[in-house]
Formats: sequence, structure tokens, C-alpha cells
Amino acid sequence: MNLNNALQELELLQKRLYAYHYAQASINVDGETIAPSGSAPGRGIALGILAGEEQRLMTGEETGRLLDYLGEHLDELDFVRRRQVEELKREYEYVSKVPADEYMEYARLLNESSDVWHKAKIADDFPMFLPALEKVIEYTRRFAAYYDDSKSPYDVLLDRYERGASQEYLDGFFADVRSKLVPLIQAISEKPQIDDSFVHRFYPIPVQRQFSDYLMQVMDLDRAHCTIGETEHPFTQELWNGDVRITTNYTDHNLIDSMYSVIHEGGHAKYELGIRDDLQYTVLSGGVSMGVHESQSRFYENIIGRSEPFITAIYPEIRELFPDQLDGISPHSLFLAVNKVQPSLVRVEADEVTYPLHIMVRYEIEKRLMSGELKPADIPGVWNEMYKEYLGLDVPSDRDGCLQDSHWSTGLIGYFPSYALGSAYGAQMLHNMQQEFDVWESVAKGDLSRVTAWLHERIHQYGSLYTPQQIVEKACGQFDPGYYTRYLTEKYSKIYGL
Amino acid sequence: MNLNNALQELELLQKRLYAYHYAQASINVDGETIAPSGSAPGRGIALGILAGEEQRLMTGEETGRLLDYLGEHLDELDFVRRRQVEELKREYEYVSKVPADEYMEYARLLNESSDVWHKAKIADDFPMFLPALEKVIEYTRRFAAYYDDSKSPYDVLLDRYERGASQEYLDGFFADVRSKLVPLIQAISEKPQIDDSFVHRFYPIPVQRQFSDYLMQVMDLDRAHCTIGETEHPFTQELWNGDVRITTNYTDHNLIDSMYSVIHEGGHAKYELGIRDDLQYTVLSGGVSMGVHESQSRFYENIIGRSEPFITAIYPEIRELFPDQLDGISPHSLFLAVNKVQPSLVRVEADEVTYPLHIMVRYEIEKRLMSGELKPADIPGVWNEMYKEYLGLDVPSDRDGCLQDSHWSTGLIGYFPSYALGSAYGAQMLHNMQQEFDVWESVAKGDLSRVTAWLHERIHQYGSLYTPQQIVEKACGQFDPGYYTRYLTEKYSKIYGL
Repeated sequence: MNLNNALQELELLQKRLYAYHYAQASINVDGETIAPSGSAPGRGIALGILAGEEQRLMTGEETGRLLDYLGEHLDELDFVRRRQVEELKREYEYVSKVPADEYMEYARLLNESSDVWHKAKIADDFPMFLPALEKVIEYTRRFAAYYDDSKSPYDVLLDRYERGASQEYLDGFFADVRSKLVPLIQAISEKPQIDDSFVHRFYPIPVQRQFSDYLMQVMDLDRAHCTIGETEHPFTQELWNGDVRITTNYTDHNLIDSMYSVIHEGGHAKYELGIRDDLQYTVLSGGVSMGVHESQSRFYENIIGRSEPFITAIYPEIRELFPDQLDGISPHSLFLAVNKVQPSLVRVEADEVTYPLHIMVRYEIEKRLMSGELKPADIPGVWNEMYKEYLGLDVPSDRDGCLQDSHWSTGLIGYFPSYALGSAYGAQMLHNMQQEFDVWESVAKGDLSRVTAWLHERIHQYGSLYTPQQIVEKACGQFDPGYYTRYLTEKYSKIYGL
Repeated sequence: MNLNNALQELELLQKRLYAYHYAQASINVDGETIAPSGSAPGRGIALGILAGEEQRLMTGEETGRLLDYLGEHLDELDFVRRRQVEELKREYEYVSKVPADEYMEYARLLNESSDVWHKAKIADDFPMFLPALEKVIEYTRRFAAYYDDSKSPYDVLLDRYERGASQEYLDGFFADVRSKLVPLIQAISEKPQIDDSFVHRFYPIPVQRQFSDYLMQVMDLDRAHCTIGETEHPFTQELWNGDVRITTNYTDHNLIDSMYSVIHEGGHAKYELGIRDDLQYTVLSGGVSMGVHESQSRFYENIIGRSEPFITAIYPEIRELFPDQLDGISPHSLFLAVNKVQPSLVRVEADEVTYPLHIMVRYEIEKRLMSGELKPADIPGVWNEMYKEYLGLDVPSDRDGCLQDSHWSTGLIGYFPSYALGSAYGAQMLHNMQQEFDVWESVAKGDLSRVTAWLHERIHQYGSLYTPQQIVEKACGQFDPGYYTRYLTEKYSKIYGL
């Protein structure tokens, strides 16, 4: 082997990994969108095999030899290639630890559990989902031990989704968040409630679709490279920086559910579409971590999307789409309505302030599941207790309780904390952005280009070229959750006149 | 290696091939349906790599050794496995002859040429499509020579789509068809024309979608296993016998274009959905040949779908969907309208009698392209001349001329004759079916179950378990194109009172 050969092999290896990633992503998008309801078995077999092929390639002898060779010649590589080798080595060591048959079996299981979860949620039938969930939990714990048995399984998973995160770290983070937000929510609850009844008038879905088109235009999402579909649970799936899919979910008696899904998923899409061309078809394409990804989606959704300048800027268009429903409603009333704080059952419909409490419930449950302290069968009971304790709510059905999120059915355990971390990163980014230009002046014109340019410069363009910590540092400086709780306290004190 | 191991490997090899087929099919369906317009480059890279991975697997040393071993133990295998080995060996020998890099390059090219064709058709711009088409033709000729340089390239391709077909055979077939149909068309043209003006009234697309739902119900196509989408060029894509996708294309000023697309693609779908479970995930799943596949789609479309008993049976539902448009129109008038014979420009809209002439144009052009006698740049001129000669029509634009079909852009050269052969098989199947039960009595009740059961018993269930010739023989007996020309002559003599 010489360096030239090795670099060619490096490029080909990454293109092959890209093709497997692409195939699985495309099949999953299809499964979530237009595939017929009885199509899961054949899809599961295909996905299982493809996961196996990918693992076989990743852990093969040729790959090992190539990475060893390049590891010995790191000094001769440019920065981009050095990072490719580093990330490939990390993945190689990771994936090599799982036996091939279990890896394929797990991919098949996830297709099945995702299918069962959909059906169980519709039927409001947790026991229907339980056997699949038990298997997912069992696999997840076993894989975590394969990866690193010197750490607790949950710490392994947390680190996988947000490098550097751990229970110790997140316990502190959430304790801080709780100590600031619980009194804030208490103070808000003692104030007169915001009237948001007009949000629940009849909003015909075809017109909501036009509204989504408008929102994508405001976010400058190029439809030649980004489609919008409709699924039970909204998601973003990137294929490459020229092809990203987002989905939303409409209900005809709610103006803002889909609106904020579109802006949230649109934020993920902006990130993926903005990644540099020279990182495509390599392991460095794709957002750097789940926390950073959620920082982008939630930045657009909450910090921009729920700001008064933004609502005021887009109000004329909303009013034109829904003239009767918004008759007599001012932009300020709409701004207040989209920021109404009220403990609620469903995470994706939660307001900005109670949102982290939804995450804490899931974090606490995942912790106990992974330690073995909690059995999957007991999730509904614990879930309902915690919603009572943290949010003061009785959960009337598992559909709006522990069956509401797709994450566990797709193996995403340890992912939820990224949402809260992402929100916290975002607040600090806003602070830093404000040092450089008047964010609200440009947003008030309905122009998000400066905001996007700032995020693009520090985050989007790099994909995974830097580590998650380096990216967070580029955009936040030294991370400090205090910005997040101060941002929420200031914003909502003003809204509620505290 | 022992036999047990070898049989396990045989199963796994076929599952892996299935997964690659599934991935590429799924990505192609996505590309044709919901993918954003600018997404082709990344898709092309993924498809190129996946085609390469599939070829690498198919032609690998392990596969060769396995097939050699099993070839020596054919006597010890049951019939199904013996056939799997035979078909795998055939494919192994076929695919091994193409250099790996060319194979991948060709897959990438097809993605690109398909994309360019879409754009060129919309823009009515043949020169835009020409460079890609030239490359496709060049690759096709080269690959044909790799496969078998003892035969002319076009004979190699014809045999690939319909085993046993050759230019000699098809020249005879088409000469026979032409000698019978040209006088028939001439005689029809001297009769008063059928009034089908009501077919071109305004038929709102949302109601046409409901009509499609009804047609799928009549064909007993289970929506849990068969979706319907909308694309410029209708197609059927099977993933496995539990997941088939069909598409159609609506225009709001035509009642029957989409109707017959749905029935046609529905016929393909019935075939794939009816293949035996024990053949799934093997090389024997999937219809046996293009000709047999087209015999099924065109049987449902024309022989059943354009029959008076069928039209009379479904008329009440059509009338309910389109009461104003069909005011004063009798079932018999509709039957006449869907069978109006009139030379036209667009193949997929052609009537049953002039249809084979459209195929002959393509067959003649493909013959000359493959022999090198005709340059791709000269296609439009020759196309237009032949439409004048065979159909008496001036072609006003390439969009409705040589750009109308997607086939060449996706590498399907040598495929068109299957449509005509399939029609001919179907007429003979009808004859045989009639010997066993009164086809029209059950169709008149709107009940296609006996027809489907007959086709299922002789064709659908077997997938590729038997050779194309064996399947044709099961359903037709000794194939004789005379049944086809007699069927057309009798049907249309009655309609036009010849």
C-alpha cells in the first residue's frame, strides 16, 4: 500500500458507507411515508441485511488495514482527511465490538418495533408494544456493554448521542434547570392565563399546507433540495446536502402545531443543507451531534419562531391565509398565544418553559431502564406518576403518555437529553449573536438571512469536521446553561408581567 | 463445504441479493415520486455504488465456489433449490462478463439519463437528452457484446427480456401482425367514427383519484400491500409479494387515460402480489419475463378492461362519480368510446388495434440503433417518418414523439417488443380460459375473481420457478400469434360493423 492508493481507498470506503447509509435512510423514509401498511416484513429483511453489509464493510480486514496504514501516516494527511480517519477509527472500534448476527437482528427488530409502535399508539395499547420494547431495551443495554463495559450502559449511550455527556453531567444540568424553571412556572400559573382559543379554530389542512410552503420560503428552504411530507411523527432525514426531507403533521383544529413542526424540522434541514460540498459522501457529512442538531431546530422554532419580531413579520401572510379565523386578532395576541405556558401532556406541543420537564421525565425513566431498576412493563405507571409530580397532570391514556414518542421504538435511548441541551446551546448562541448584530431588527423584517449566515459560519458548514465540543465552542464559547434559564426567565417575565 | 452449509449459504446469498434489489428499487421509486428535483447527483452516487456492491457479491469468488459446489450436487436438491441454482448460475455468467467499474458507471449514468430525460421531455428538447442517450446506447451495445459476442447486440437484448426472442422471430411475428392489422385499420377508417367527445369533458382529478380507488377494489388489490402514486410515466415496482407500488398520471380533461393506466399497472401488481411465499427473497421471486408480465397487465387492461361486460358492470359506479359528465351516456356508448380506433401519437394512449404499430416503430428504431445503422441524433427524423408511414400522422413535437417513453433513458432497449408479445399471449390465454368457464358471465357481474384465479394458477404463483417458455406453455399451450390477430379482428369487426 502507498499513500496515493490508500487515499483512493479512503474515498471509496466512505462512498460505500454513504451508499449504505443512503439506502437505509431512503427505505426508512419510504416506510414512514408512502409504504403500504403491510409492507414491514420484507422491509425488515432488507434493512437487516443492509445493516449487516454495512457492518461487514466497516469492520472488514481491508478496512482495518487501511485505517492502520493511514493512522501511521496521519502527519502526511490534510486536516479533512485526518479527521475522516479519526472518525472512521472511532466508528470501526465501536462497530467491531458487536457480533455481526446481533447487529443484523437488531436492525430487523427496529423495523418491527417501529411498525408495532405505530399500531400500538393508534390502538392506545401499551401491552401490544411491550414485547418489542423489551427487546429493544435488552439489545440497547447489551450493545452498550459491548461498546464500553467500564461505564454504565446509559453513560455509554449519552456519550454516543452527545459526546462528553454523562449522567453526572446531566443530573447537574437538569437540577439547575429545574431549580430555575419550577419557580418560574409557579409564578406564571398565578397570573391570568393567555387567551389562545383562536388557535384552536378550524384551520383547513389544504390552507395549512400553503402556510407550510410560506414558512419554508421564509426559511429560504429550496424546494429543489428539500421536500415536505406528512407523517404521524414529524422528522427530518438527510440523504446528502442536496437532498433533505422534512415532514409535518396537520390537525384541522390547530394553527400552530404544524407551524412549529415545520420550523423545527426546517431548522434541522438548514443545518444539513448548509454542510460543505467537500464533506459530502464522507463520514464528516451530517450534523456533528444530536445536541447541536437540536440546537439548530429549536433555535429556529423557539428563539426565532416564537419571538415577537418574527410573529409580527409573518402575521400579514398568516392573516391572508386565515382571514376569518384571525378576525380581530392582533400580531401581539398571536405572539402571546404561541408562548402560552401551560403544563400539557404531549412533548411536541409543549411550550418553551415546561418543555424541559417533559425531557426530564424521559431522562429519569431511561436512567432507570438502563440501570435495570425499572422494568419496561412498569413504564406507564412511572410515566404517569412523574407527569403528576413534575407537571401536575393526570395522564388519561398511554397514547398521550408513554406511547407518544417514536424514539424508543427506533432504538433512540439516550437521545432525549439532546433536546434540552440543544435548547440551552441555542440561548447562548443568541447571546453571542446579539453581540455582533441586532438580531431582532433583521428578524422583524422577516429576513432570517443574517441569523442563518451566523449559524452557517460557525456550525452548519462544518458538518462533523470538528468535534461536537469544538463546534459548541465556536458558537457558544464556554458552555454555560445559565444563559438558557436567564433567557427563559427574561422572556416569560416580560410576557406574564412577573 | 457440505450440503447443509451450502444450502444455508444459498439462502443467505439470495437474501443479500434481495436486499440490494430492494434498496435500488426503493431509491428509484423515491426518485420517481417524492424526491426533490435537485436530488439526482447524490442518488446517482448511491445507486452506482449499490449496483457495484451487488455485482461484487454476485461475481465474487465465494459465490462462484458455492454455485460450482451446488452445480455438482444438483441431483440432491429439491426442485425449487435446483431452479435457484440454475438461475443464479445464469446471472453469475451474465454479470461476471461486465467489468466492475463499467457496471457502476452505467448505474450512475442511468440515474443521470433518467433525470435528464424528465427535463428534456418537459422542455421538448431532444438535443438536451441526446448526449445521455448516446452514452446509454453505447453502453448497451458494449454490454451486449460482453454477454455474448456470437450474436448481434440486439438479439442478446431481446433474449434478455424475453428468453428465446430474436430479430428473426420478431420480424416474422410483426410481419404477421402487420399483414392482418393494416387492412383491419383501413377497413375501420372507412366506417363512421365513434363519438368519444364526452371522454374529454372536465373530470376533476380528486374524483379521478376516487375512481382509481374503486378500480383497485374491483381488481381486489389490497391497499395494505399495494399503494398508488402519481408520476409523469406510470409504472409498477415490486419490492416483495407484500409490497408493490403502482402509479398513474391524471389529466383533468380525460376520463380514460388514468383509468387504463391503473388497470394496466394493477395487472402487473396482481402478478407480483400473487407469487408464492416460498419464492420470496430468492432469485425466483418476481415475474418470469417482460413478455409474460405485459401479458398480465394488458390482459386486465384490454381484454377485460375494454370488454363490454366489464364496462357495463362498472358503469353505475363511474356514473355516480361523474353524473354530469356522463349525463345521457349509456354503458354501450362508453364501451364504444374506450375502443375507438384512431391512429394517435402517444403509445400509452393508443387503442388496442393501432398499439402494435407503435411498438413496431420502436422495434425498427432499436434494431437500427443496435446494428449501428442509425445514430441516436437521427432518431427524431426516423421516428417522425415512421409515424407518417405506419400511422399516417405528422409528429408535431418530440415530446409527443421520440421523447414520450422513459424506457431508453433507463436502459430498457429491447423491452418494447414484450408489450406486443404480451398482448398476443393474452389473446391465447383468453381462448383457453373460455374453454374452462364463461369468462364474460363472471366479468359481467363485476367479479374478476375467476379470471384472476385462472391466471394465478397457471402464471402468477410461480414467479420465476419455471422458465418463460414453460410459463407461456402452461397458460397458452403452443404459442400461436394467430389468436391475437383473430381476437382483434373479431372484436373490432363487431364494434365497427365490418
